[in-house]
Formats: sequence, structure tokens, C-alpha cells
Amino acid sequence: LLICTVAAIKTTVMIHPRTLRIDYGKTTTVLYVVGSELNVNLNRSAPPTSKFFSVKGTANVQYSISPTPRDTSHLSPIPLTENSVLLISRDHASQYENDSKLSVQYYGANKEVLGRAVVHLTAVELSLDVDADRDGIVEKNNPKKGSWKWGPNGHGAILLVNCDSEKTYKKTLDSEDKNIYKVSGKPLSVQLQFSPINTQFFHLFSVPQDFNGLVTINLSLLEPISDGLPETPIFTDKVVFKVAPWIMTPNTLRPVEVFVCSTSDNYQFLKGMRNLVAKSGYKLNICHEYVNRGDRWMQDELEFGYIDSPHHHFPVVLDSPRDGNLANFPYDELLGPDFGYVTRVALDEHVSSLDSFGNLEVSPPVTVNGKKYPLGRIIIGVAFPTATKGRNMTKVVQDFLWAQKVQEPIALFSDWLFVGHVDEFMTFVPAPNRKGFRLLLASPDAGYKLFRGLQNSGHGQATLFDEQITLDKILKDEKLQAENNYVQSCIDWNRDVLKRELGLDDEDIIDLPILFKLVEDEKEYRAVAYYPDMVNMIVLGKNLGIPKPFGPKVNGRCALEAEMCSLMEGLGLNCTFIDDYSSYHQLLGEVHCGSNVRREPFEFKWWNLEM
Amino acid sequence: LLICTVAAIKTTVMIHPRTLRIDYGKTTTVLYVVGSELNVNLNRSAPPTSKFFSVKGTANVQYSISPTPRDTSHLSPIPLTENSVLLISRDHASQYENDSKLSVQYYGANKEVLGRAVVHLTAVELSLDVDADRDGIVEKNNPKKGSWKWGPNGHGAILLVNCDSEKTYKKTLDSEDKNIYKVSGKPLSVQLQFSPINTQFFHLFSVPQDFNGLVTINLSLLEPISDGLPETPIFTDKVVFKVAPWIMTPNTLRPVEVFVCSTSDNYQFLKGMRNLVAKSGYKLNICHEYVNRGDRWMQDELEFGYIDSPHHHFPVVLDSPRDGNLANFPYDELLGPDFGYVTRVALDEHVSSLDSFGNLEVSPPVTVNGKKYPLGRIIIGVAFPTATKGRNMTKVVQDFLWAQKVQEPIALFSDWLFVGHVDEFMTFVPAPNRKGFRLLLASPDAGYKLFRGLQNSGHGQATLFDEQITLDKILKDEKLQAENNYVQSCIDWNRDVLKRELGLDDEDIIDLPILFKLVEDEKEYRAVAYYPDMVNMIVLGKNLGIPKPFGPKVNGRCALEAEMCSLMEGLGLNCTFIDDYSSYHQLLGEVHCGSNVRREPFEFKWWNLEM
Repeated sequence: LLICTVAAIKTTVMIHPRTLRIDYGKTTTVLYVVGSELNVNLNRSAPPTSKFFSVKGTANVQYSISPTPRDTSHLSPIPLTENSVLLISRDHASQYENDSKLSVQYYGANKEVLGRAVVHLTAVELSLDVDADRDGIVEKNNPKKGSWKWGPNGHGAILLVNCDSEKTYKKTLDSEDKNIYKVSGKPLSVQLQFSPINTQFFHLFSVPQDFNGLVTINLSLLEPISDGLPETPIFTDKVVFKVAPWIMTPNTLRPVEVFVCSTSDNYQFLKGMRNLVAKSGYKLNICHEYVNRGDRWMQDELEFGYIDSPHHHFPVVLDSPRDGNLANFPYDELLGPDFGYVTRVALDEHVSSLDSFGNLEVSPPVTVNGKKYPLGRIIIGVAFPTATKGRNMTKVVQDFLWAQKVQEPIALFSDWLFVGHVDEFMTFVPAPNRKGFRLLLASPDAGYKLFRGLQNSGHGQATLFDEQITLDKILKDEKLQAENNYVQSCIDWNRDVLKRELGLDDEDIIDLPILFKLVEDEKEYRAVAYYPDMVNMIVLGKNLGIPKPFGPKVNGRCALEAEMCSLMEGLGLNCTFIDDYSSYHQLLGEVHCGSNVRREPFEFKWWNLEM
Repeated sequence: LLICTVAAIKTTVMIHPRTLRIDYGKTTTVLYVVGSELNVNLNRSAPPTSKFFSVKGTANVQYSISPTPRDTSHLSPIPLTENSVLLISRDHASQYENDSKLSVQYYGANKEVLGRAVVHLTAVELSLDVDADRDGIVEKNNPKKGSWKWGPNGHGAILLVNCDSEKTYKKTLDSEDKNIYKVSGKPLSVQLQFSPINTQFFHLFSVPQDFNGLVTINLSLLEPISDGLPETPIFTDKVVFKVAPWIMTPNTLRPVEVFVCSTSDNYQFLKGMRNLVAKSGYKLNICHEYVNRGDRWMQDELEFGYIDSPHHHFPVVLDSPRDGNLANFPYDELLGPDFGYVTRVALDEHVSSLDSFGNLEVSPPVTVNGKKYPLGRIIIGVAFPTATKGRNMTKVVQDFLWAQKVQEPIALFSDWLFVGHVDEFMTFVPAPNRKGFRLLLASPDAGYKLFRGLQNSGHGQATLFDEQITLDKILKDEKLQAENNYVQSCIDWNRDVLKRELGLDDEDIIDLPILFKLVEDEKEYRAVAYYPDMVNMIVLGKNLGIPKPFGPKVNGRCALEAEMCSLMEGLGLNCTFIDDYSSYHQLLGEVHCGSNVRREPFEFKWWNLEM
């Protein structure tokens, strides 16, 4: 058993010395900040011909001499050198003004007194403090308060942008309304102890923010030199905050509430969603027609995310520049106390269908060639990387997403789709094994393979679309086959990108039997789903709400539904097919496009990322 | 002695597999890029009820099957599983179109043939190459060509901004005129081998640049699927360049050429400069009055720097937004072949005297608490950090300086000066010992100390300014003393910042005896030099060109010159005093303000910095 007795453990706060000038024949009055050190070059303003000096002071002030004199008593004359320095400090704030006194006496070659310099010192305690150790509590003068370091062994305070609204009536963003540091949890503390001090010389703040989302707050104390002259700075301090990033929530996180629109024509859909959400045990929010004004695309107008810090976290909605008739919904209906709001405004840019947030998704956590993404990766759709024309997500939104850093985005190629959203060909579902999820991809090949198998087993006369077309006819349509080959090659491209960027194997991917067709728009051919696009689903834990495909009936059961169920049941997932045919599919969207889910935040704390 | 025989060392270039679809009963024509791998899921488009398959191919194509079949011959039927994959590759470009052929035969349960899929393959060599190992030569397919890493063990190519001008008549910046990659040394190479290929499907480039100065170049190859349908991407490659930063050169680097203006009234000054520069062995460039139009402040209109890469480097002038009558000099007279030009335009910002480049300096290399700055640190002057009013260097220029990253700037407080430039109170000179340089600071205290010593030794009647004022009178002026106390406290603030940010000790600093006085401008009091400001010197190796101070004569010699020489001679430096009194000092500038020096680049390569 080893027992150590430690007499004193003291954290030394690095505050750099401040040059103080004194002068013989004069009394210098100085304002001193506890924790700092005054550095007086004794030779600099000694009387000419001085050869020795001595120092004395009141008991409440500490001083030392450098180089250390041989004689330990400072009262007997010490040889004065070019570099004789007096270092002065104090432990506590003053009780009253000028309550510390020091004097330096100068002597000639024969130790005759040549002059005396006096210092009157008033000590104040001044601290600019933050929660640099990320435990939710502001600590005193953390030596690392002025910098940021990522990771579990990192440090640095976190600032939640005050993007919620405390008001519910005539609301505005708090950040536009009040002190920007008024957020719960007190991430910043400024204290000045010693009341008699003239606060006109206490200057807080300058607040510069840099490209990395670091906000620096400077504090300084100014002292008047003499009447009619400007004051001079005598103390400065700074703290650094990292602005908390906006974080998206993948399908594998637990849902909290589901949002859909009610329109004059979507009764069937709403009924299906009501049952699914009730069965799953979550809250359903219906946005009524007087609010949605006929705009049913709840997925496209907004994306739910959150911001997190050691002292507080809350959901934040990102409002799309799409601005359909649902444009006011995020601000009017979602923004509130502890529910934040952020938007990006496209100034000189054309807003296209690719700016709808059906084109903004996020993967579950992945590890790619050893690199961990514990918050997953954002996925967006763009025009093909080298395309000179083509539609794209606006730069303001892309820049915003990339700037968050903690869910490094992946750009897929989605401009080949008429609507152009990544949720038309991909989604993620939870899985009990492997990486904890599967990537589902729409696959015309899988569709043709399924249909050919049915044809081979004698079901060529089975019909799709309630008797409108037979399997045989579909399989004979060479134009449709060519179009689907093209679609498959576009999806294959994205498949290869996703495998590479998410570190997936073929076994992590499930191909869903979905056909597309091309439609012409101003001589450009782009793809739309041929029948309801099953990959465009809502994922609520183990329950999937899937567009009812209206596929060929075999032995009284839709062969597409049967295939879908068989693919999903191995993962322990339950399929509910929701009829969105006339109210969504025919308007070129499906279940996912028409809904949105707010989910629980990650357990993982973003500041623990190693960047 | 250990001898190893290495049979084959091969660098494997990580090019990720590309999904290829084939179909039974069909021939698939595929364009293949050498170095990539085609991944064919054999089950995906096999005839229904297929249970076995076999593969054969021409000798010029390599293929393997996964999972590896037990029977090593691919010709006997192999069981077909869900995950049977055929991997195809080729070593060399094709001699003619479709010169590789593969076929996959499918069999039923009784090994009866059900169908056959054929692949015709044309291989091209396509490479997008850079000098990622920084040896000045573009290498072939460096696996690290797509990323940047700082340091001697780092990698990543470097792009010199093409900011020089090959034209001398009617010149423009090359970057505004031509292909932006046309710079000497060939930092980028793009090659496509195999001539018959239809180059309309070869798309170069998209060139996005990020906040960190990284430029990504994407290249892709598109393939037509069938007539009337859009082509699809089949290969993409990218390389990353770091834009070379603009680097400033401190006084410790070897001069190349000196620039001064000729005006109707500066004959004395020019004579002094001519002698000094000739003696030092450098080139003197005189900007004549028809160009300078009376603007003599050569220091303030421009700053010399350079850009560097493994294949090339050249000087680049940064043109100040000051834009006095010398405004056109940098563009018209300096820009040329291998002489670059860059400027920052202040759009909505007020340009003040702090934007002149007498307010932009750079320290010699330093190490601060273990952190190395082998290229030194940029030094600028601003208003006091927390000041809400006051003059400042424009944000466009500050942002530019900070963005260079390799000489992390230090902001000093210079707004207390009437002109507001850091070169009014500080400079650096080379030194044979310690850190290789000394910081020289203007010091009213040192001035008063010198003058009081002279008074004490009986020289109180010595005069300054050619008989205009005695030492006794100066030392009796209490207002002047108070003003100089204020100036000293402002310089002390900067002294403390410089000690901290450059890691200096008091022994690294020399105080020069210089007095200031305050002048009023719109109720603000700011400082100007009382007599020629000796710190505002030109440093040419060991020769210093110092403003002639016209100080008190003692024993026939100017006491200020004597003191200056005595302080400098210990460092092996020679002082030449240049009369700038009427032509510069009285216009509130001195030798440094009226000159500029282009210097050799650092030996140290900026990409070897550890960031």
C-alpha cells in the first residue's frame, strides 16, 4: 500500500507577464488583475548612475527579483544590472483601493540614496469563464478555455445557437431578439470582483467567428494614463466556443413524432398512416389544409435535426428553400421554446426540385476503411459531378451541410430522375445483424427477374394496375426494357458510390423489384416510377409503411407485396402497405415524400468525434 | 548480413469495383478503364431456375469467381449462389475495339444449358495525374493523389495560382486570359490512351475549391446505353491540389532589389539610399515621378512575397487597397512573366491609413512554446481588440492574410499612432546569436533615460533640430513627458504581445531612444515621432539605413546616432544615417515608409509545415 501526502496541488493558469513601468521620484498607481504578473525592469527608469537598489512592500503583495540576489534580504542594497527585474503578484482582490504598496529605493556607487519609486496597487478579480471541460458546468479559469480540440480527450466550450423562440405569440428567433448568449445552462460566465472599480474601463466584447465555426470572445480592461489622453489596455482575456453543428437523424433512430398533411383527396393514405403510427406507438401530427394549402409534400419542405451541447440539446428544423405552399409551416408551426429553426436563402441561385429534402437523407453510423462516422453520413443528390448543365441542390444549402462537418456528406447522382430525389431509389432500414442496417435500393433488374420468373411459372397473364396491363405485355416492351437498363446503370453508379463511401458489401444491400419509365421534358429524358415506388417508405422502428405497389396478383396475393415481405421479414421488419396511388404516386411522390419523422438524438456526443 | 529477395513489389492502386450488368441471351459491350475492376453479380440476371454456370474468356482478359469454386477449372459447371460474383480486369489498353471477349453459360439442375451471356470489352488507359509526392515531377496514378497532408511525411499536389503575366504589352493576368493550369512545371497530366474512343464521352472537369484552399478536379468517362437515352457515368477519378499560399519575407532574408521613389524634393534621401544600396551590393530601382505622381510611400502601396511549389516559384506582389498615386505601380511596373500580382478590393469597407503596408510586416522564424513557425509570423496593426470605434485594416486584407495559414498573423495595437503603422514602433534586424534576430522597439523611456544622463553629465544645453530646442527644455516639458508615458504604455502592450506570440525574452528586444508627441485630429489624440523615428529603417543584410535623427550634439557627435551605433555594433550591424527630414519625416514617414525590398524566398518549403 502506497500512501502519498501531497502538500499542495495547484493548477497554474498561464497568464503572461505584463510590463509595468515605474519611475524614481514618483508614485505609480496600478490596477492589477489577480492571476497575472507584473514585470518591472528596474534599470529602465532608475536614476542615472544608480548601482544598487532595494525593495520593500506591504504583506498583501508578493514580489521577487530576477536575477535572484545572493543576499536573500531585499532590504539591503542589491547590485543593479541591465536586466534586473521585479516581479509582482497578488493572490486576492483588494479590500479597498491602493491597499498594496511597494517601494524601490535606488543607490549610487557608495550606497548613497539617489531616489525612490513607489507603486500603489489595487487588485481585481476578473474572469471570463466557460465550460471548457464539457461537463455542463462553467469552471473557473480553465487553462484550455481559449482553444478547441475534438475528441474524448479534447476540450473547448460549445455554443448552442439560440435559434429557438421563447415567445409563442408574435414570435421571432431568440437570436434576433435578445442577447445571443441567453441560452439555458449558462455556457459563459463573466465576473468582476471589487466594486469600486470604474466600469467604464471594462470593455466586453469583441466576438469574431471564423470559418471553422469557432467563436472567440475577447474581454479587456483599460486604464486611464492621465486626463485628456486615451486609456491604454492593461489586461485581456479570451474564450473560444465551437458553434454546435446541426445533426440529422437516420431511420435507425427511435421516432418521436410523425408529420403528414391532410388534403381533400388523401383520406385513404391518412387512414393507412393513422393505423401504422398508432400501432407503432408514436405521435401523429396532421397538418391541416388551411395550413398546407394543398401542398402534401411534408418530406420536401423541411428536415428535422437537433443541436447538442453538454448543458442542453433541442430539435432544430432546417427549412428548405423549396418554399411550396407549406413554406410557412416550419416557422409558424414548429419553431417554439426549445424547438429551433434554421433556413438557407438562395439569393442569386435557381431553386430546383433537387432542393426539396426528399433529396436530403442520412445514413446510419458506419465505419469506412477504419474511419468512423458514429453519426452517419449525409446523403444528397446532385447533377453528375462533371455535368456542365443539369439541376443541382443550391450552393447555400450544400455549403450549410458541408460546414456542419460531423456527418460528412456524400453526393449521389439523382438528376437522372424527373423529380430528382435520392429517396426515389434508396432508403435504410434497421437490421439485427451485420452493420445494424441494410441499404435498400430500387432495382429494375430485380423487377424484371421477378416478373420473368412469374412468366416462366405460367403467370404471364397476371395484370398490374387493376387489370390494365399483363406481365407478358410488360416483358415484351423493348423500349421499357431499354429505359430500365439505363435506370439500372444510374442506380448502379450510386450503388458503387454508396458501397465505397459507406464501406458496404453487397450483403449489406437489398435490391427491391421496382421498374421505372422515362418521361420527356424539354428534350431531356428522365425517370419516374412505373408503379408505386416501394423504396420510398416510412421507417418507424420495426414497422415499415410502404407504398402499396398494385402489382400482379398470383394466387390471390400481390407478387410485389409478397416479395417485399419476404425480403424484409428476415430482418424482423413488418410491412404495412399504404394506398398512396391516386393521392401521391400519380403526382410523382409516395409515402416517404408525403411524411416526415422527428427522431431521438444520437447517444453519441458529436464533440467526442476525432477530427 | 541479411539478404532479401523480393519477387515482386507492386503498388496497388485502390480503384473501387464497378458494377456491370450482363444478361443471358445478350452481348454486353463494355468500355473498361485499366486499373479498375468490373463486378458482375451472376445471379442477378441469370435465366430463372439456373443452378450452375461456367465462364470462359480470351487470353487478354483476367477474371476470377467469388466465392472461389472448389473445382479450379471454370469450364465445368459451378454452383450458382445468391452471391456468385465474376470479377473482370485487364492489364493493358486494347489494340482494337472489343478485343477481349468473355462468356458466361448458365445451366439448370441437370446441367442442361439455359442460356449464355457474352461480354465484349474494350480497355482504355485513362489517368489523371499530379505531383502528389512533391518532387517536381508528375507521377503515374499516385494512390494519394486525391488528398492533402501537411508535413515532411505528407503528400498532395500544389497549384501555383497563375497570377503572373506572360504578355508584356497589353498585359492581363494569365489566369484571366488562358487555361488556369498553364503554368510552368506541368503540375497536372491527363492522358487517354486508345485512339478509337469517342471523345465526346470524356468529360473533364469540374473544379470545386473549398475553404481550405483545396482544389478538387474531377474527371469522368460517360458511356451511351442506347440511342436517345442519356449516357451514364462509368468511371470517375479525382485529384486534389492545394493552392500555394502567398508568403512574406522578413528582414533576415537576403535582399534582391530595393525600390524607392524619385520626387522633386528628395534628392538628399535618394543620394543616401543610392550609396547604401550600392555599398550593400543590391539592385536599386527608382520609380520616377511620371509614374509615382508625387506619391513617395513605396512601402505602403505594396508588399513583396512569393509563391512556391516543388516545380516552380516566383515573386508575387500584394497590392494594397490604399490606392494612392502609386496605385498602378504594382500592376503596370511589377507584374510580368514569372512575377505575380494579387490584390484585395475593399467593397463596402472604409479604407484607412491602417491598410497601408507599412502596417504589414513579418517576423523572422520563431519557436513559441515548442510550436515552430519556420516562416515567421505576419504582424499587422489594428484598433484595440475590443474597441467599438477606431480605425482598422480592412477585413478583405485581414481575411486574405489569415487564409494563407503558413505565417499565422499577430494583430498589434497601432491605432494609437496618427499614421497607425506597426513600422513606426518596431522592426527586426539579423543577429549572430540567440534566435538569429533582435526585435527593435521605439522607446520613449530609453529616450528620456539617455537625455537625462546627458543632462546629468552637463549637456543640458545641447540642442536638437539644428539649434531649435535644448535638452533641458525637453526634459522640463511635463506635457511631453505625460504623452510619452502614454506612448510607452501603448508600446509596452505591444511588447508584451510580441514576447508572448513570438516567444521572445527581454534579451531578444532592444529599446531605441525615440520620443513621440501627440497631435489632435477631431478630438482624438494620436502619436507622431518627435524627431526622425530611427526604428523606421531599411534592413539590407548587415547594413541598416536609418533616418538621421538630428539629435543633441555631444563632443561634436549626435548622441542619438552614437547610441544607435553602440546598440547595433554588438550585433555586427553597420548604421548608415539617411537624411529624410524634410522629404519624409515632416510628412510623417521615414526611410522604411519610403522604400521597399524584394528578398529571396525561404529555403524552408511551406508544405513541410506540420499543421
